[in-house]
Amino acid sequence: MRGQDDRQAYDRGTSLFSPDGRLYQVEYAREAVKRGGASVGVRAVDGVVLAAERRIRSSLLEPRSIEKLHKIDDHNGVASAGHVADARQLVEEARQTAQVEQLRYEEPITPEQLTVEVSEHIQEYTQAGHTRPFGAALLVGGYVDGKPQLFETDPSGTPYEWQATAIGGSSDEMETTLEAEYDPEMGIDAAYSLAVSVLTDEEDPDPENVAVAIIDEDGYRTLEQDEIESVL
Amino acid sequence: MRGQDDRQAYDRGTSLFSPDGRLYQVEYAREAVKRGGASVGVRAVDGVVLAAERRIRSSLLEPRSIEKLHKIDDHNGVASAGHVADARQLVEEARQTAQVEQLRYEEPITPEQLTVEVSEHIQEYTQAGHTRPFGAALLVGGYVDGKPQLFETDPSGTPYEWQATAIGGSSDEMETTLEAEYDPEMGIDAAYSLAVSVLTDEEDPDPENVAVAIIDEDGYRTLEQDEIESVL
Amino acid sequence: MRGQDDRQAYDRGTSLFSPDGRLYQVEYAREAVKRGGASVGVRAVDGVVLAAERRIRSSLLEPRSIEKLHKIDDHNGVASAGHVADARQLVEEARQTAQVEQLRYEEPITPEQLTVEVSEHIQEYTQAGHTRPFGAALLVGGYVDGKPQLFETDPSGTPYEWQATAIGGSSDEMETTLEAEYDPEMGIDAAYSLAVSVLTDEEDPDPENVAVAIIDEDGYRTLEQDEIESVL
Amino acid sequence: MRGQDDRQAYDRGTSLFSPDGRLYQVEYAREAVKRGGASVGVRAVDGVVLAAERRIRSSLLEPRSIEKLHKIDDHNGVASAGHVADARQLVEEARQTAQVEQLRYEEPITPEQLTVEVSEHIQEYTQAGHTRPFGAALLVGGYVDGKPQLFETDPSGTPYEWQATAIGGSSDEMETTLEAEYDPEMGIDAAYSLAVSVLTDEEDPDPENVAVAIIDEDGYRTLEQDEIESVL
Amino acid sequence: MRGQDDRQAYDRGTSLFSPDGRLYQVEYAREAVKRGGASVGVRAVDGVVLAAERRIRSSLLEPRSIEKLHKIDDHNGVASAGHVADARQLVEEARQTAQVEQLRYEEPITPEQLTVEVSEHIQEYTQAGHTRPFGAALLVGGYVDGKPQLFETDPSGTPYEWQATAIGGSSDEMETTLEAEYDPEMGIDAAYSLAVSVLTDEEDPDPENVAVAIIDEDGYRTLEQDEIESVL
Amino acid sequence: MRGQDDRQAYDRGTSLFSPDGRLYQVEYAREAVKRGGASVGVRAVDGVVLAAERRIRSSLLEPRSIEKLHKIDDHNGVASAGHVADARQLVEEARQTAQVEQLRYEEPITPEQLTVEVSEHIQEYTQAGHTRPFGAALLVGGYVDGKPQLFETDPSGTPYEWQATAIGGSSDEMETTLEAEYDPEMGIDAAYSLAVSVLTDEEDPDPENVAVAIIDEDGYRTLEQDEIESVL
Amino acid sequence: MRGQDDRQAYDRGTSLFSPDGRLYQVEYAREAVKRGGASVGVRAVDGVVLAAERRIRSSLLEPRSIEKLHKIDDHNGVASAGHVADARQLVEEARQTAQVEQLRYEEPITPEQLTVEVSEHIQEYTQAGHTRPFGAALLVGGYVDGKPQLFETDPSGTPYEWQATAIGGSSDEMETTLEAEYDPEMGIDAAYSLAVSVLTDEEDPDPENVAVAIIDEDGYRTLEQDEIESVL
Repeated sequence: MRGQDDRQAYDRGTSLFSPDGRLYQVEYAREAVKRGGASVGVRAVDGVVLAAERRIRSSLLEPRSIEKLHKIDDHNGVASAGHVADARQLVEEARQTAQVEQLRYEEPITPEQLTVEVSEHIQEYTQAGHTRPFGAALLVGGYVDGKPQLFETDPSGTPYEWQATAIGGSSDEMETTLEAEYDPEMGIDAAYSLAVSVLTDEEDPDPENVAVAIIDEDGYRTLEQDEIESVL
Repeated sequence: MRGQDDRQAYDRGTSLFSPDGRLYQVEYAREAVKRGGASVGVRAVDGVVLAAERRIRSSLLEPRSIEKLHKIDDHNGVASAGHVADARQLVEEARQTAQVEQLRYEEPITPEQLTVEVSEHIQEYTQAGHTRPFGAALLVGGYVDGKPQLFETDPSGTPYEWQATAIGGSSDEMETTLEAEYDPEMGIDAAYSLAVSVLTDEEDPDPENVAVAIIDEDGYRTLEQDEIESVL
Repeated sequence: MRGQDDRQAYDRGTSLFSPDGRLYQVEYAREAVKRGGASVGVRAVDGVVLAAERRIRSSLLEPRSIEKLHKIDDHNGVASAGHVADARQLVEEARQTAQVEQLRYEEPITPEQLTVEVSEHIQEYTQAGHTRPFGAALLVGGYVDGKPQLFETDPSGTPYEWQATAIGGSSDEMETTLEAEYDPEMGIDAAYSLAVSVLTDEEDPDPENVAVAIIDEDGYRTLEQDEIESVL
Repeated sequence: MRGQDDRQAYDRGTSLFSPDGRLYQVEYAREAVKRGGASVGVRAVDGVVLAAERRIRSSLLEPRSIEKLHKIDDHNGVASAGHVADARQLVEEARQTAQVEQLRYEEPITPEQLTVEVSEHIQEYTQAGHTRPFGAALLVGGYVDGKPQLFETDPSGTPYEWQATAIGGSSDEMETTLEAEYDPEMGIDAAYSLAVSVLTDEEDPDPENVAVAIIDEDGYRTLEQDEIESVL
Repeated sequence: MRGQDDRQAYDRGTSLFSPDGRLYQVEYAREAVKRGGASVGVRAVDGVVLAAERRIRSSLLEPRSIEKLHKIDDHNGVASAGHVADARQLVEEARQTAQVEQLRYEEPITPEQLTVEVSEHIQEYTQAGHTRPFGAALLVGGYVDGKPQLFETDPSGTPYEWQATAIGGSSDEMETTLEAEYDPEMGIDAAYSLAVSVLTDEEDPDPENVAVAIIDEDGYRTLEQDEIESVL
Repeated sequence: MRGQDDRQAYDRGTSLFSPDGRLYQVEYAREAVKRGGASVGVRAVDGVVLAAERRIRSSLLEPRSIEKLHKIDDHNGVASAGHVADARQLVEEARQTAQVEQLRYEEPITPEQLTVEVSEHIQEYTQAGHTRPFGAALLVGGYVDGKPQLFETDPSGTPYEWQATAIGGSSDEMETTLEAEYDPEMGIDAAYSLAVSVLTDEEDPDPENVAVAIIDEDGYRTLEQDEIESVL
Repeated sequence: MRGQDDRQAYDRGTSLFSPDGRLYQVEYAREAVKRGGASVGVRAVDGVVLAAERRIRSSLLEPRSIEKLHKIDDHNGVASAGHVADARQLVEEARQTAQVEQLRYEEPITPEQLTVEVSEHIQEYTQAGHTRPFGAALLVGGYVDGKPQLFETDPSGTPYEWQATAIGGSSDEMETTLEAEYDPEMGIDAAYSLAVSVLTDEEDPDPENVAVAIIDEDGYRTLEQDEIESVL
């Protein structure tokens, strides 16, 4: 049985496997994702809802500036969790990827292709020397060619497609709730209610503490505070 | 006799041989392959079957997105095992290799050439400093010039040609079964039954837990869930 | 529970996460920010006030030369805290960013875009090998398109938007005061009084020990000593 | 006298000599050569025979794919021993070298020149930092300008010319037999019998376990299984 | 409380902050500055005086060659302290900077701009890996556009503007004297007397042990030995 | 007094001096030279003789292929000692140097210039990081412009000119004999006898164990076995 | 007080200052200079004398080839001390510097400029990572524009101008003698006698053990053995 001392021998560089085939730095980067607030994504038949927890540490902080929801292009959005500065780099990478694709093929990138390309970028940071993995995970929601889709990418650079999922702190509990309550036939309104209720999980949640974006046939848009309030 | 302490002296860098001529990082990468689900390949007289275990951790996860079967071009497919993000990079490498070859020679790449070129790519990551080996193995199945072929490449970058084989977790047991039951004269249907039964190895296997692709004179195609069910 | 010895294993390189997902070098860089004097920013309805503590170690030192207020362009200014040489590099980076933006789009960069681009630059120094994070934080105040805005960026490379905030030594206490006394309807004069009083926090403060800049519709300007005196 | 502890101080990098002038990493790479199956080369008056042991770990493995005999061009072939993936890189290097030479001088490369150029490539990996030596040795057999020649190159990058020799596991014993039984006047048939008998060294050897190539005035060709059988 | 052992963990690389936010290598480079002789700068209303201690270790050494006063261009001069070879590189850097500026804008660089650019160069050596900080400090004196100015830059790359200051060994004591005796209204002759007396600080100083340069409206010039003698 | 432990602190990198100013890796590379067979050079009034010991480990090895005598161009030859693969790289470097010189100046390179340029190449490998010194020494004999000359270069990259000398194993004893028996007036035949007798140093030496080259006004040529025999 | 253990913590890399501001690798390189023979330079009113100790380890060694006197161009010469191969690289650097200067300005480089440029080259090797300092010192003597000058550069890359000085083993004692006996009015003959007597320092010195070069209005020339004898 291996103790802590053995583990320490293999977790100092991204270029090393442990004897049992694990990449400790990638696992630690996953811990960085767990340290931040959660984000939730729910796919409806007519769109995708992304919602993100807000942890406002001061009344003087503009909530908008710590939001973890990002428009990528007219048809795709991202909700992030984990190390904020790392997540922002990935969002920037996603935007450039979407723009290049749009210019090259004259049609919008699908959320799947977007997730796959960002994931490859992330993987390279887990294999190259002289760097560290990204300590962030992303939910990518998109609505392209009449098809709503929800993807996740994690610090190893693996893409997953979900009906609904959560990333970040407490995401395990949230996933359990989502599994219990998700209905594949739900419309965007029900999806939106589900996402917000999973994220807030309180008797009397404060609309200030949550941010919501919807991506549907009208494209990407964020919800105003009063729209959120009406759900809570 | 060498104990654990001695081994630790040589397993921290890909650029080092141990005194008995071993490359520990490559061996640990092989452990990473064993940590994931298994994939099986069976060559029939008229095509190749690739099948992959699915480990679905949530009912909300789209099974398709964690599939380990990948179309490379019209005539070649890959089944992977091990660290998913690493495997995806190799699949991307394979696709580009196939595309370049097609453009240069105006005919499809053979599965052998495809495997050889990807293997060289893998080997370079076992010899260069400042990186780590790929923690993934691939089965490459192809049908080019009327000839079905099945290849494997492993984390050392060594290509092998097989009649039938398995990679990933429990692959040793599966290989034993394949050796006992493989018939070089079997057609694609028998090969398909063999692949699925080896992979599921249960009284009453769930078709949800397996994905299957066939490469034959009609090219690469994946099987629908009900087609798989009809075998089980 | 982890002791000091464990921590030391993960804080020597910027490329490493600790097992609990922290980046120690970034946290130490935040300590470097705390070691210097404080800077305060307050957003008024008609402009932004930046104020910086002056720690004059000798009567022969020209106060102007250790000032932590920097004009970026006609519409944006920066107040810095932390390792002075690092801060100056970031200010230079900000100036070049503003200039490039102006040339490319023929309109001034907004304080938000300026902060985002400098933050990305900072983040890269937390992820690349062979370097260290910047030991400095910046407040970015700007007035573009009739809109006053105040941003912060820290050693992790995360941008925040504030109504009012403080960085550097004793900034925690200052933030508490700001939260208590800030009024979102305040004009530039009230903002200016608040910034200076928070920064000096003495019965009889010396105008020599504080520097102030105002960014409003007339652009960026620093205040003369007697103007400051009139507030104290 | 130096013990194991001293040795460990000098065997971690290819860029280091030990105090007694040895390159331990190169010596460990030689151990990697010994770990694999053996290959034998015998020069006859009218050609060269290359033969390689086959260690077939499964009845489903296509023996051809693990063969250690490689055609380089019409007039030169290689038999390898050691780390398979490393050997394949060297074979690829040899092929490119032969092709470039052919294109430049419009005549085939000699086995000597081929060996010298591959050896220089190998040496560079023993001197440069951030890499490791190749864990493979090659026998190069060629027939150019009516002259049969047999060369060896080892992990240090030293070329040797032989009348007959063996590389890989058990090669020491095989060399003793070759010294006893080699006749410089032997024709290709006798050379072929010698090579196979040295390699199999059993009462009743299985033709499946050996692969043979002949390079003579007709160029490079491998032998069919039944041709091998006729010798045994 | 941290002991010496802890410190040693963070002072081996320029790329590391200590847990309390310090850059030990930069602090050690400051020690290198203290190891050499002192230099003094005094700004008068009509010019700047730079004076440097001479530690002549042999009567055969040409004093001129170990002088720490360097003409940068017609309007700027530098007095250095610390590791001599490092200081010379910075002086060379300053000369090139001044020349480029002159060519580009067809007017002389100001001492402020000169100091800022050299400081940025110094800072980069405190942040990049694979190098060390410069173990030298500079005083930059200039007279451009009728304005005399005196600047300092230190091993961290921070620029300061002074009325009068000292760098190098015993500079702390010298600064105390300067603070006591400096008069902002003093002319170049008084400044010159002050600089030399601070530097020599002896009953009967030897003019051989001090070098003096004056930068005023006539440009940069060094003083002859007898001119210095007349002051002492 | 320093013990073995201290030495070990400074002999792991080519970039380090020991506290007493030694370069241990270069000294260890000299040990590598001593590990191989010896080579001898003798300058006569009308030419230069190079002779090299042959250590034939097998009767099947072609002696020619392990020879340490190399023609560089028509007027210069080299005898090597030490790590064979390293020596071959230096010989290749020498050949390219000679060829470039010939092309540029349309006259043959002198043995002195050849030695100087190869020595500079060797020195660079003792100073650069990420590499190791060459574990080989060369004797360079040439006859250009009617002048016979003999040079040596060693692992530090220092060139020496000799009347006669030896490198490699037992070279110290051989040098003693050469000092006793060398006659500056000797002709090529006497030089040849001296070289061979010093190298073989046996009652009844075997001409198989020595290789000889002569460089004189007729250029570079190696001696046939029977020519050597006639001396012994 | 710091012991040996502390020092060892800071002397392994050229990129590190010790806590008291020292560069140990540079100090160790100075030890390398002390390990070799000495060189002496004396400036006369009409020229410069360079003299170097010869340590001839064998009667067969051509003394000329180990000489430490090097002509740089018609007007400048160098005497070296320390690690021979390092010194030769610096001499080569000096020659190229002189040649470039000559081509660019069509007049000979002065010994001062030559020393300054070589010193900058040396300094860079004390600051960059992945290399080591040069273990050599140079005396540069020149006679340009009717002015004889003597300079020294050391392993830190610091240039000094001297009337007379010594470098290498026993140079401290020699400097003491030079200080006692040097006369600034001495002519080239007296300078020459002084240099040789300081260097040999024996009752009955052997002219074989010293080499002398003179640089005066006739340019650079070395002295014949009998010319040296006439002094002794």
